[in-house]
Amino acid sequence: MSKDKKLVEAITSMDEDFARWYTDIVKKADLVEYASVKGCMIVRPYGYAIWELIQNELDRRFKETGHENVYMPMFIPESLLQKEKDHVEGFAPEVAWVTHGGSEKLAERLCVRPTSETLFCDHYKDIVQSYRDLPKLYNQWCSVVRWEKTTRPFLRSVEFLWQEGHTVHATADEAQEETIRMLNVYASFCEEILAIPVIKGQKTEKEKFAGAKATYTIESLMHDGKALQTGTSHNFGDGFAKAFGIQYLDKDNKLKYAHQTSWGMSTRLIGAIIMVHGDDSGLVLPPKVAPVQVIIVPVQQNVEGVLEKAYELKERLSKICRVKIDDSDKMPGWKFAEYEMRGVPLRLEIGPKDIQKDQVVLVKRENREKLFVPMDELETKVPEVLDEIQASLYNKALNLRNSRTFKATTIEEMENILDDTQGFIKAMWCGDAECEKEVKDRTAATARCIPFEQEKISDKCVCCGKEAKEIVYWGRAY
Amino acid sequence: MSKDKKLVEAITSMDEDFARWYTDIVKKADLVEYASVKGCMIVRPYGYAIWELIQNELDRRFKETGHENVYMPMFIPESLLQKEKDHVEGFAPEVAWVTHGGSEKLAERLCVRPTSETLFCDHYKDIVQSYRDLPKLYNQWCSVVRWEKTTRPFLRSVEFLWQEGHTVHATADEAQEETIRMLNVYASFCEEILAIPVIKGQKTEKEKFAGAKATYTIESLMHDGKALQTGTSHNFGDGFAKAFGIQYLDKDNKLKYAHQTSWGMSTRLIGAIIMVHGDDSGLVLPPKVAPVQVIIVPVQQNVEGVLEKAYELKERLSKICRVKIDDSDKMPGWKFAEYEMRGVPLRLEIGPKDIQKDQVVLVKRENREKLFVPMDELETKVPEVLDEIQASLYNKALNLRNSRTFKATTIEEMENILDDTQGFIKAMWCGDAECEKEVKDRTAATARCIPFEQEKISDKCVCCGKEAKEIVYWGRAY
Repeated sequence: MSKDKKLVEAITSMDEDFARWYTDIVKKADLVEYASVKGCMIVRPYGYAIWELIQNELDRRFKETGHENVYMPMFIPESLLQKEKDHVEGFAPEVAWVTHGGSEKLAERLCVRPTSETLFCDHYKDIVQSYRDLPKLYNQWCSVVRWEKTTRPFLRSVEFLWQEGHTVHATADEAQEETIRMLNVYASFCEEILAIPVIKGQKTEKEKFAGAKATYTIESLMHDGKALQTGTSHNFGDGFAKAFGIQYLDKDNKLKYAHQTSWGMSTRLIGAIIMVHGDDSGLVLPPKVAPVQVIIVPVQQNVEGVLEKAYELKERLSKICRVKIDDSDKMPGWKFAEYEMRGVPLRLEIGPKDIQKDQVVLVKRENREKLFVPMDELETKVPEVLDEIQASLYNKALNLRNSRTFKATTIEEMENILDDTQGFIKAMWCGDAECEKEVKDRTAATARCIPFEQEKISDKCVCCGKEAKEIVYWGRAY
Repeated sequence: MSKDKKLVEAITSMDEDFARWYTDIVKKADLVEYASVKGCMIVRPYGYAIWELIQNELDRRFKETGHENVYMPMFIPESLLQKEKDHVEGFAPEVAWVTHGGSEKLAERLCVRPTSETLFCDHYKDIVQSYRDLPKLYNQWCSVVRWEKTTRPFLRSVEFLWQEGHTVHATADEAQEETIRMLNVYASFCEEILAIPVIKGQKTEKEKFAGAKATYTIESLMHDGKALQTGTSHNFGDGFAKAFGIQYLDKDNKLKYAHQTSWGMSTRLIGAIIMVHGDDSGLVLPPKVAPVQVIIVPVQQNVEGVLEKAYELKERLSKICRVKIDDSDKMPGWKFAEYEMRGVPLRLEIGPKDIQKDQVVLVKRENREKLFVPMDELETKVPEVLDEIQASLYNKALNLRNSRTFKATTIEEMENILDDTQGFIKAMWCGDAECEKEVKDRTAATARCIPFEQEKISDKCVCCGKEAKEIVYWGRAY
């Protein structure tokens, strides 16, 4: 193990400098490379393979819940972006503007979509006429652009990959149902597939999406105690419908405004995986989103029979999981460190001694636990161990979150907790935006959400001391 | 049948006005809607579902041949676009320029990628150092932008979806091998999945890709006798490597320039499907890319037992194909016309009489052939019929192409053929660009390709009468 340590010494340790540890992993696990445009990233094959697994699973869940994929243009005419007042205020300051096509100046400048509400509305206005046309449950996989100044791969970048669901419904109730349904899809996806526990709740007025009536969110806690918003789901009510004129003729022969939702998740999820599960040896991938679930490393591969056996095992395992073999002439120690860096959940070692004993050695990435498995039990044991790892990562993340979720009844307490250690702080709130602002100004923590699971830890607002309305999760956030 | 005709009368007939027939299908089969930005399109759920089937199958074939997916930024700094001289000349006139981010003017303007050679090269320069790093076999699924003035959905639009493969190799031979390998992947995909026969060949110097050493193409013939380039594969030699400084240390310890390829296919393929297989009742989809392969239409669905039976059949068929049921209260005649318009390969009718006879009626979209199939043979018969349809569509397309492939030994002959009917014209060429230009000026036909399968129909160039070098496929093209 000291040898492995030496091989990966290039990673900064998490405790020393979390931000550098993060970018070290991103680079050294070959997830991302910086691009020639500042703030943009190149998603490399290994990073993209994780994204593909995320996409496949999310897409399956979207289709199961009745959604269809579409593709909207990437350009939004300035006049279209301006149709909904709050929306344009929220996004206009951070969009990229196309002003020329070829050698000609455009009559109207176009922004590169920062999000596509306006495009979907413009389309819905054309295709929704009758109650029979509703609901429309659309989703789009694409990239969006937000002209951010301070960027970090996966967490905040000028361009990023995401999906954006946009739906239109006859009634307010149906829109609300859809908003919560998709929040739940996101939550179960994070917990079951990414092994990341989430807090479900509603955003405050101040934190909600530009143009939304209500924004719901799932919030997760990273290893450094900072919060990350992993997905959001918005109910627009009929605000956009009124701005864009999306009306339908109802059964009662009356013309009514439609109700809308939107919801999105992005490559930010990969950042969450890194910061929730990673350790000082590198990335730790939950088996369900690991492009390689088992890496076979032959030991003493020059000894006759070892490589043959290794190929045979690969052949067998390829039927039940994503498996790869590293038969290069590098030293096993180098390979161990390399695939630990890349977060491969399970390493399978096979050498002459193992062959003699008719066994293989399995080593779990998460804790380096070794298992000696009889050769003929491989097909039952490997999926079992992968499931164990998936569950274990979830539990560890949940324990971490629990151990770093605090309660506070005064701002001073909040300050002390945040100075001492980071984490979620549960504290009561009166509902006044002034108090929310003061908490933020004094602690640098924002209201992450008003959780669905309410509890009462005091009668008074953590800030003003007046009567409290609800409990809020606060935290410093990415 | 006269009733169906009446229901779909809104489509222009192919013979009357092919261009309008095309746009009628595109709109009425719900493939595309126009967007608020001129020349951009909204790909609607049905159109996007076809694209997803194309993507899945192509992606599988790319991965089978060792390729990995990545994602590059959508922006290219102007200075980067300019690094390869021929390339920038080819693309600069038709790119969209981003000049502002938020409220600030950019120091250097960025173009929205029209294609990503320059970005891949910039990346390869960073990640390729040694022969051990080669080859890199990358592909990207994304959208690109070309500021075209005359646009048509799927065929030519300001933004379109595509894949672009970009590979880098140690030697010229390997790059050439890859170029041809991917052309063959494209060709077999078109023939096996889209049921579209293709001519494989090389582009002339004049028609090759900006910056390429050699461009290879697959060309198909549309129903109106015009040619469509369905896919291209380029060998760049070491031209880009020299412009971008992509060098590697070879086994012999010498620094050498790498060799590169790129290849792309786009949503244009959906245009090809429409124009190769469609007819006056609408779209005709090859079963392998049909989002719905079988549509179940209950007949007299109010009679007891009919809907139950229909659901039961749907349940059974959903295990072996993509099946949908239309149990709406619309008339069967309307449904027949609707799913013919949408090109669903097979209609299954089930009514009280069929139930009595323990049979279903299958109707092929391509020719309205009716088959009476015993209920218990459904699972064997349906896949069989779908395969038959797939093969039949290919054969019809091949017959059409053969019947519209002509030979000519003079330009006058070419002119007569093109005035009379459109099609491919095979004619000998001396290899001189002047002759190529004259043919184009006089006939509006371009050199589609120098086919791999050469033959000799004359000793003399069709234009200048001097000694001919090779046979060329000529045609007017989309």
